[in-house]
Amino acid sequence: MKKYCCVVSYDGSCFHGWQIQPHATTVQQTIQEVLSQIHKRPMTIVGAGRTDANVHAMGQTFHFESELGLAVNVYQKAMNSLLPDSIRILSVREVDVSFHARFDVSLKHYQYRINLGEYDLFQRKYCYQLNKPLNIDDMQQASQYFIGEHDFTSFNATPLADCPNQVRRIQSIDLHMEGSLLLIDLVGNGFLRYMVRMLVKTLIEVGLGHIPPQEVLSLLLACDKQAHSYLAPACGLWLMNVIY
Amino acid sequence: MKKYCCVVSYDGSCFHGWQIQPHATTVQQTIQEVLSQIHKRPMTIVGAGRTDANVHAMGQTFHFESELGLAVNVYQKAMNSLLPDSIRILSVREVDVSFHARFDVSLKHYQYRINLGEYDLFQRKYCYQLNKPLNIDDMQQASQYFIGEHDFTSFNATPLADCPNQVRRIQSIDLHMEGSLLLIDLVGNGFLRYMVRMLVKTLIEVGLGHIPPQEVLSLLLACDKQAHSYLAPACGLWLMNVIY
Repeated sequence: MKKYCCVVSYDGSCFHGWQIQPHATTVQQTIQEVLSQIHKRPMTIVGAGRTDANVHAMGQTFHFESELGLAVNVYQKAMNSLLPDSIRILSVREVDVSFHARFDVSLKHYQYRINLGEYDLFQRKYCYQLNKPLNIDDMQQASQYFIGEHDFTSFNATPLADCPNQVRRIQSIDLHMEGSLLLIDLVGNGFLRYMVRMLVKTLIEVGLGHIPPQEVLSLLLACDKQAHSYLAPACGLWLMNVIY
Repeated sequence: MKKYCCVVSYDGSCFHGWQIQPHATTVQQTIQEVLSQIHKRPMTIVGAGRTDANVHAMGQTFHFESELGLAVNVYQKAMNSLLPDSIRILSVREVDVSFHARFDVSLKHYQYRINLGEYDLFQRKYCYQLNKPLNIDDMQQASQYFIGEHDFTSFNATPLADCPNQVRRIQSIDLHMEGSLLLIDLVGNGFLRYMVRMLVKTLIEVGLGHIPPQEVLSLLLACDKQAHSYLAPACGLWLMNVIY
């Protein structure tokens, strides 16, 4: 039995998220069905983490165990030939049997995409169509409060009962324009449920002038799930890369 | 009764083409239903031409007649608020009652998009995923045979019985790279059914080295519907602009 780690890209608009669930097509289920077909037995994969419905992945990762002993490029080709065109295995590598796609994550890189220009219907599933200007200097200033190790209780939807320690470390937040798109790149050691989308919507509120940059610090220090209800749309969020 | 000319953009992957037809959702039908709702009577629109299923439009045009006498931006806002997010009215202008969206066309600009790089799943509905290199110099050389006024009988699927005169004038064909995308811009006074897709697939065959550039001239001079069966996929085709 050997273990393999795969990098996979998928169009989140075609799935009800990553995580397997009854009565809905998910990315995990679709990949498991294909691997089960190849292995002629029920197969399970373990992802680096869940992504919500409509969240896209350029580089999600997962691991699986196989007794077939095929070459890594054969696994890749076999999966891609059976997967729908909305999912693509970008690479397969053999890993040590001790490797774990979720527990071994060192950093995750997410990107959030906002169209500040005219509504672009061809991008409607792939970015947040804000279609108005933002004060990026103020957003940059506000983003500094999030960098470093903080208790992000105010900025995620994971109940404290399920996860009492909501301290996470954000390594960097970078904002830059690409055409009319504002791209916000966030790198950190872990993100709780809705965390990126709540951080980003808070920055957008700053950029719109609805709240001053310093207000963000108060929200962070509040450590209160009721502190605000900012949540950016899922379609703008991209899981870019998982680093081990 | 006043006449209005609209510029409209749509995602061709969401419709069975422009032209109204039974048992399928088309762009024309969708817009007519919205205008009928606004006018509280059955409305008909006249497009600059048809686009096939999966062909996209950045700037298709159509005209309609209205007794409401609303300001042009009110027509635009009313339509956009009722249309699905896969169709967007970009502008509305009042035109002379003698204006005709199809008969008055002076030039049409199409763009064909080919991905020569790695498969990009997020572009799968918006370009042709060739995913291999092309000899663009040879394609450029071959494209010269199409420029000017020619009988394009060999390069379209309109039966001669329906349209005996298949002479059309192509003003320019421009090939250039944008990232890993090869963009082919074609401007001409009229394009017959499948004409752009047949011209482009012929150029691709040249670019792949399957036929020499000069062979294109023989195919053109043959004026024969059976001369070849080259047809590029619809998803790579974009109607960019209609000029009056």
